[in-house]
Amino acid sequence: MSEAGKPIVEVCLTPALFYQYNTKESIVVAIDILRATSSICVALQYGARSIVPVMTVEESFQYKEKGYLIGAERQGSMVEGFDLGNSPFSYMEDKIIGRDIALTTTNGTKAINIANGSAGIVAGSFLNLDVLAAWLIEQNKDVLCLCAGWKNTFNLEDTLFAGALSQKLLPHFQLSEHRDSAIAAMNLYNLAKHDMYDFLKDSSHRTRLERLKIDEDVLYCLTPNQTLVVPVLKDGVLKKHSDW
Amino acid sequence: MSEAGKPIVEVCLTPALFYQYNTKESIVVAIDILRATSSICVALQYGARSIVPVMTVEESFQYKEKGYLIGAERQGSMVEGFDLGNSPFSYMEDKIIGRDIALTTTNGTKAINIANGSAGIVAGSFLNLDVLAAWLIEQNKDVLCLCAGWKNTFNLEDTLFAGALSQKLLPHFQLSEHRDSAIAAMNLYNLAKHDMYDFLKDSSHRTRLERLKIDEDVLYCLTPNQTLVVPVLKDGVLKKHSDW
Repeated sequence: MSEAGKPIVEVCLTPALFYQYNTKESIVVAIDILRATSSICVALQYGARSIVPVMTVEESFQYKEKGYLIGAERQGSMVEGFDLGNSPFSYMEDKIIGRDIALTTTNGTKAINIANGSAGIVAGSFLNLDVLAAWLIEQNKDVLCLCAGWKNTFNLEDTLFAGALSQKLLPHFQLSEHRDSAIAAMNLYNLAKHDMYDFLKDSSHRTRLERLKIDEDVLYCLTPNQTLVVPVLKDGVLKKHSDW
Repeated sequence: MSEAGKPIVEVCLTPALFYQYNTKESIVVAIDILRATSSICVALQYGARSIVPVMTVEESFQYKEKGYLIGAERQGSMVEGFDLGNSPFSYMEDKIIGRDIALTTTNGTKAINIANGSAGIVAGSFLNLDVLAAWLIEQNKDVLCLCAGWKNTFNLEDTLFAGALSQKLLPHFQLSEHRDSAIAAMNLYNLAKHDMYDFLKDSSHRTRLERLKIDEDVLYCLTPNQTLVVPVLKDGVLKKHSDW
């Protein structure tokens, strides 16, 4: 924490740059707007008991044998043999109530897992923006917004959310010396916020997802405050903060 | 080059992400607005014969023994025993006319050197924006804008220039699949362009340079089209494109 007494908020634009940050004393907000961290918020809001982020499809099947529902996405699509995909809507069904879920996605679970060793790890999305900001302010610890990106490259939608969250935190937080990414993210968010769907129309991920015909997913994932959960990771498991 | 026949323009936000691009067939534009690539443009405009980007202070002194003028900047300041610093104004003096210069800076020379093995390497700054854009359009090759950043971290001023250049190129170029960084850079440039000095007022580099009292340098480096040179690197040496 800084001399001025306020905790610091920083933005890491892709997991490839994560090594530049020391997060031993920080809470890391993993951000994969399209669609892992959005779906995680939805699943916990709609009654899933817990979510285990796993790295590989093979590992997922081991969890299935233990009675977990398993969800996966690779290259934007669902994977054969899995119970759930990566669409937030698939996590609104009754079958998930009270269940433990193992989830593996191209970028989101990776971002969550590389943050291991941080003071805290939570999942952030537009769907839990306000409740997450309020919870982070309450924790009074430094925060790193970690954009999952696409295979370690920069992406726009995660950056927009990092900007939205940084801006919500700033009255109670301050920028660090490495502040340029947070300034860029906030400026981009303010430019985009009145119509993020339109702002992202030429972005790589929307172009990619359009081929998969999941425009409804994209629209939903860009809608702030559809859930009231803060997914907190402990011992490799995500649960609502109130369930820990 | 793409099927549509237009070459591609991409933006690499920091040297730490350079490994994500294949530049064997591309021209890399090294960008270190504050102040290496700005000073390189000025030096060649004002009569220096050539500039050798070197990595270390020790290497610079070897060039001094061979009769080169040597310029250096470390942590934003000049280095003892050097003839020149990193201020563009120090490269407007008569003593540089006809001379060869060895230059080492914190970020700029590093960005130029990691691009080794690309189809071409040039130095870009606001000071040569229009002439550089025209020259790149003429080459009709893919272009990667490589932001030098600050010690491998993202910075705003290099990103603004990458946005300005991408926008100038776009009618003749197209975006790649990894387009989000170019879209972000262009949006930030459009937001900033009417008063870049003000836009950067909270940025890390301006804060750093303010301590060094070089506001005039910053203002000058943000002024488009003060020179008519395209510094082209061949065999480790930068010269005006017309001198090769």
